[in-house]
Amino acid sequence: MRRFIIVGTTAKGSGEFSLDDLPSSSGRLDVLLRCVRAALLTSHGLRANVVVYLMLLGEGAAPRVVRIGGEGLKFVRPDERSLAVLVQKLLLRHVGQAVGQEGAFVEQKPGLAVADGGLECVLAELGGASVYVLEEGAGDVRDLDLASEDVALFVGDHRGFDDATRGAFEALGAVRVSVGPVSLHSDDVVTLVTNELDRRNW
Amino acid sequence: MRRFIIVGTTAKGSGEFSLDDLPSSSGRLDVLLRCVRAALLTSHGLRANVVVYLMLLGEGAAPRVVRIGGEGLKFVRPDERSLAVLVQKLLLRHVGQAVGQEGAFVEQKPGLAVADGGLECVLAELGGASVYVLEEGAGDVRDLDLASEDVALFVGDHRGFDDATRGAFEALGAVRVSVGPVSLHSDDVVTLVTNELDRRNW
Repeated sequence: MRRFIIVGTTAKGSGEFSLDDLPSSSGRLDVLLRCVRAALLTSHGLRANVVVYLMLLGEGAAPRVVRIGGEGLKFVRPDERSLAVLVQKLLLRHVGQAVGQEGAFVEQKPGLAVADGGLECVLAELGGASVYVLEEGAGDVRDLDLASEDVALFVGDHRGFDDATRGAFEALGAVRVSVGPVSLHSDDVVTLVTNELDRRNW
Repeated sequence: MRRFIIVGTTAKGSGEFSLDDLPSSSGRLDVLLRCVRAALLTSHGLRANVVVYLMLLGEGAAPRVVRIGGEGLKFVRPDERSLAVLVQKLLLRHVGQAVGQEGAFVEQKPGLAVADGGLECVLAELGGASVYVLEEGAGDVRDLDLASEDVALFVGDHRGFDDATRGAFEALGAVRVSVGPVSLHSDDVVTLVTNELDRRNW
């Protein structure tokens, strides 16, 4: 299983944003949505062995995590607006129900779930996965010694990681990895890691 | 100079599409716009050595080519809707002026130009560039022997290339290249080629 965890430092968890002005009104959820496409979609299909977590840590709502993928996920369209509609509906339904237990994922539809909380919700799902953090200047992903197909890869948004999150990575023994010499958008990072894993037939 | 030429077999050249339903109303211009981001933008900047050509070959208007990049291009936002607004304004202004000479690029703003025509408009701009075509099953981009920094890379949309375009590639002596074992979206292909060129410091 490949788990991509995209840390949205400013993305809002309320679902209250405008589809016509996504970057400003959502706290740059657009950055995270592009990662969903890069992680989950191939040319004409969905990757069944991938789960994407969107950590929504922005102001205006309690931290929340959206989980997309794995068993049961059906048709997902690649364009940003369609992905925004999908995540918005998911969040609004979740907020409306308010049945969740703190920290637990509540499945809204097959392959689509939301949890109230932050990093702890994701960590509770990782099991024995090897944990990697994508960071500039770290060891090259092409040289990575992958011991297991069960991987969890943390990717930062346009602001990178804050100190608390970095501390958690250290406590987890996460391995730092980079994708090349140029500082890239988060979705490019996801694409490059995905390609390396594809090449290893994982 | 890196030139990415994205061949939009169904994308409309009229500029008449809805921002609220981009994929259907534009003939999948969304596929091409995502390539613009992947080719031109780094984490916090623009690549000055890259030009992107969007070939708009869909029905409803004469074929048209949009050129984005190179000298003078300023701030470009990464989200799909902003890119759609940029290209729509460019096309509508071009159509309204109708001052273009068949096949020649008319600059509308620094770094932004439109030409009436198809492949011939692009070929007229390539000079001595080495020409590559991104195709599944071809030789690996990682093994590519790049003789020059002056490259032109053709990337297909969700439908790939038609026979006429393939014939033109053959006549050009274009080298076929692939990015890995999985069939990917066009923007992923652009990201992967870009990374390989970045790694070679080009």
